[in-house]
Amino acid sequence: MTRKELVDQIGKKQSFLCVGLDPDLSRLPKFFFDYPDPVFEFNKRIIDATKEYCVAYKPNVAFYEALGTGGWQALAKTLDYIPDTHFSIADAKRGDIGNTSRLYATTFFETFNFDAVTIAPYMGADSVKPFLEFKDKWVILLGLTSNVGSIDFQFFQNKDGRRLYEQVFETAAQWGGPDQLMFVAGATQADHLEQIRKIVPDHFLLVPGIGSQGGDLEAVFRNGRNKDVGLLVNASRSIIFAGEEEETFNEDVAAAAQNLQLQMQGFMSFA
Amino acid sequence: MTRKELVDQIGKKQSFLCVGLDPDLSRLPKFFFDYPDPVFEFNKRIIDATKEYCVAYKPNVAFYEALGTGGWQALAKTLDYIPDTHFSIADAKRGDIGNTSRLYATTFFETFNFDAVTIAPYMGADSVKPFLEFKDKWVILLGLTSNVGSIDFQFFQNKDGRRLYEQVFETAAQWGGPDQLMFVAGATQADHLEQIRKIVPDHFLLVPGIGSQGGDLEAVFRNGRNKDVGLLVNASRSIIFAGEEEETFNEDVAAAAQNLQLQMQGFMSFA
Repeated sequence: MTRKELVDQIGKKQSFLCVGLDPDLSRLPKFFFDYPDPVFEFNKRIIDATKEYCVAYKPNVAFYEALGTGGWQALAKTLDYIPDTHFSIADAKRGDIGNTSRLYATTFFETFNFDAVTIAPYMGADSVKPFLEFKDKWVILLGLTSNVGSIDFQFFQNKDGRRLYEQVFETAAQWGGPDQLMFVAGATQADHLEQIRKIVPDHFLLVPGIGSQGGDLEAVFRNGRNKDVGLLVNASRSIIFAGEEEETFNEDVAAAAQNLQLQMQGFMSFA
Repeated sequence: MTRKELVDQIGKKQSFLCVGLDPDLSRLPKFFFDYPDPVFEFNKRIIDATKEYCVAYKPNVAFYEALGTGGWQALAKTLDYIPDTHFSIADAKRGDIGNTSRLYATTFFETFNFDAVTIAPYMGADSVKPFLEFKDKWVILLGLTSNVGSIDFQFFQNKDGRRLYEQVFETAAQWGGPDQLMFVAGATQADHLEQIRKIVPDHFLLVPGIGSQGGDLEAVFRNGRNKDVGLLVNASRSIIFAGEEEETFNEDVAAAAQNLQLQMQGFMSFA
């Protein structure tokens, strides 16, 4: 998917919501286990219930990998089921030396046909660049993450007070433009989004941490948006585990997604 | 495997060689494609040919993941085929928020039964600690990597001249002791191994970059060893692609592994 197509979808839907497809078996409502492929059935219903309210889906690969070969099959079926109008993100956080990163890129962009894959920056340019060689495919680089451990290394400061995460944004922005590179910036770090926008005014930010992790959507929008909105805000658990009973599952999940979409529409109309 | 068992194997074999099982299909000798599972047949012969000369095997998960479900099956069969006397490392470079890292840990330590998994440090403590909760299992954290991109962020310096990679070694050594945590330190960075040993005198170092990447084994041993040797030096391409013809494949691969083992034995006897 191109940047223009994504921006158009955001405008049309009045939404910059990404739904995280993280089918934690221990939290799946019991009725799904009556189906031959509970994980795919779960994702299918989540997609049916939310596609009107979101512009992107982000399966975290860990949840599929943990299920062995059946998990990879469920991931492939899920990706096929995501409408072409929606941006698809493999949340894999990969990163290896060049020849190995090239293989990972082939896996996620060709064997699968994801629009984007998340990448860890620690190993530097040659671990990231092989992913940037695929036309209309995207790298989403970890910049400033939403978890408490982000404090350990991402705030490491140089003599000018510059933090590692700032260095990551600035350096990586030279590897890929806003039409092929995005950054992860956690919603729990909303205070830092203004500073991030000074470094990367045009790149999209993928923002996890709304919902169960406690991030503030309004602060994210205020500090993080750019002229094209430039945000994909992800919610996983607060949406996908909003339904319990089979009869009301779809409407409960839809309501959780719509609730976020309506908030987003409100922020966009005042922007 | 416990630290003592690993140290004993190194003493007994007079080797600290780890063989990287990276079955790049484009480089597999043609005759393997006459077998029903070329990747497993390749790995099986590599293991048969090298097990006398090495103490560890390290499949890089990218090479299996790229092959879809058949690749994961080949990885499982390969792991079953690695003798219990050998330390097994899933080179996966994973790292995610806590609940997701816990899933990855379950995948590699329980669904599979690897002794160790490689982890990226960028996301900090809560992305690493779930892997440290498994008894007699190991985290191998990226410290200073062997690739050219290591310069981009790993050498980022604070006001005292301390580099990010040094901070990673020091901070992470507080999360796990030398009986459950190792670090990756590239052979191409041999000049920095002395400094690393000042920070982590007792932890094992997994050292890639010998062979095709050009690292110097003698410099690695001189600067990186500790009282228990404390090194696993990995070679992949220079060993596993040493054979071409079916008749001489095993002996050619064995010779490449033995060549490194004999060098190691020489260094150990003078230590």
